[in-house]
Amino acid sequence: MVNEIRSKGSYLCVGLDTDPARIPTFLLQEPDPVFAFNKAIIDATLPYCVAYKINTAFYEAQGLSGWISMQKTVDYIPDTHFKIADAKRGDIGNTSTQYAHAFLKAMPFDAITVAPYMGEDSVKPFLQFEGKWAIVLGLTSNPGSADFELKTLDSGSRLYETVIARVSEWGNTSNLMFVVGATQSDEFINLRRICPDHFFLVPGVGAQGGSLAEISQKAINNDVGLLVNSSREIIFASAGIDFAEAAGAIAQAYAQEMSTYLNGLS
Amino acid sequence: MVNEIRSKGSYLCVGLDTDPARIPTFLLQEPDPVFAFNKAIIDATLPYCVAYKINTAFYEAQGLSGWISMQKTVDYIPDTHFKIADAKRGDIGNTSTQYAHAFLKAMPFDAITVAPYMGEDSVKPFLQFEGKWAIVLGLTSNPGSADFELKTLDSGSRLYETVIARVSEWGNTSNLMFVVGATQSDEFINLRRICPDHFFLVPGVGAQGGSLAEISQKAINNDVGLLVNSSREIIFASAGIDFAEAAGAIAQAYAQEMSTYLNGLS
Repeated sequence: MVNEIRSKGSYLCVGLDTDPARIPTFLLQEPDPVFAFNKAIIDATLPYCVAYKINTAFYEAQGLSGWISMQKTVDYIPDTHFKIADAKRGDIGNTSTQYAHAFLKAMPFDAITVAPYMGEDSVKPFLQFEGKWAIVLGLTSNPGSADFELKTLDSGSRLYETVIARVSEWGNTSNLMFVVGATQSDEFINLRRICPDHFFLVPGVGAQGGSLAEISQKAINNDVGLLVNSSREIIFASAGIDFAEAAGAIAQAYAQEMSTYLNGLS
Repeated sequence: MVNEIRSKGSYLCVGLDTDPARIPTFLLQEPDPVFAFNKAIIDATLPYCVAYKINTAFYEAQGLSGWISMQKTVDYIPDTHFKIADAKRGDIGNTSTQYAHAFLKAMPFDAITVAPYMGEDSVKPFLQFEGKWAIVLGLTSNPGSADFELKTLDSGSRLYETVIARVSEWGNTSNLMFVVGATQSDEFINLRRICPDHFFLVPGVGAQGGSLAEISQKAINNDVGLLVNSSREIIFASAGIDFAEAAGAIAQAYAQEMSTYLNGLS
């Protein structure tokens, strides 16, 4: 993936949070409107991104047909691109093993997002698949991150710092990343201090308001170390016949901005 | 549900962690072996339990056919019984809303388990459905609970205590329960001190080793306040032709034991 990032000059991840209520109405006559939408978005954004993130909730909410659309979508994304199931799973060991199987084996995702609350035996099963990744929640982009993630422990560390430090012991830089929200830019210097080498998956630019410039400046490391995700801002850039073209234009603009930050690297 | 518990003398929840690798081999010739297994287990245990908990991981791991088996199973459980999607979901607000829709509206579950790490806006969408419940992870049954849930904050409270106290502010006793592991019996007196009125969903008896007697003694409240789940011990009681009968017998034994603890209530 690092090679793909360097050759493209982009560390953009396009989030396929495909809400059927928001896709262009003329697509609703397609046999599988969600897949038709995703296919067009993927075709238009492929040159400008290195990863796609499928937000499983939007597919599960459609029941069976949603599950079919998800499978078709992940099958359609070419192997040049990193495929993330944004599923935020995590349970006791035997159950996490089933979730890992569902997304990393039964479906050809490269990575799955994982919730850390239940600790080691809930996370480790996602780290057991050769060439696959767990992307564990560190510090998320939403207001609720203040409720628990930013609480301080009696050790003096905040919960999210403890989570990142502890989870880092269970994996390595080849099978483990962390989710870090772009809206938490005040924490990015600190994040790189406690976690210099792992990739961060960074949602929260665009609709949620995070600054690409600021997080790039603070968190790019020697291997780039960032995948920055934008979902709604890209995929719902237009509700018209030009929806894919409009998505491609926004993705291209992100890629161009990103290449300037990468050019600053030695 | 409280009336159902009182009239039956049981607060047993049967966990349908239906691993296709463990169901009796003669069922594999059925068109839908997982549903055939669940149907027989439900028929045999119905008189002895008040709830069923579908562990979604085991269904997702089977892809499309698993999703179909899950839908058929939840449709088959009669309305006399409380239907829990053990899905441990949780994400930013717009995504949690999709998950809530998937399980509480598109499928007829009464409740879904929810991971609290991301805070208020990740939990609240599950509390917006009339007559439905969020069951939020408090203190789980697994060894990994020591990694974060049992950590002490600078306030002097442990993380799980803070989670339960804070999440309680977002819901009420009619739409919110907590997951508390039966293996954490040392914490049950404290749990009822900080959370006297909410129902607890208690996994971890049986295969995981928790004591039904001890948790019942420490945590039954005026509305009973407990749903105790057993999964593998019941559903995989026998791998033979008598699998359903064997499951029914274990469920009946649990119900009988539970009725003695309920008889002690005034």
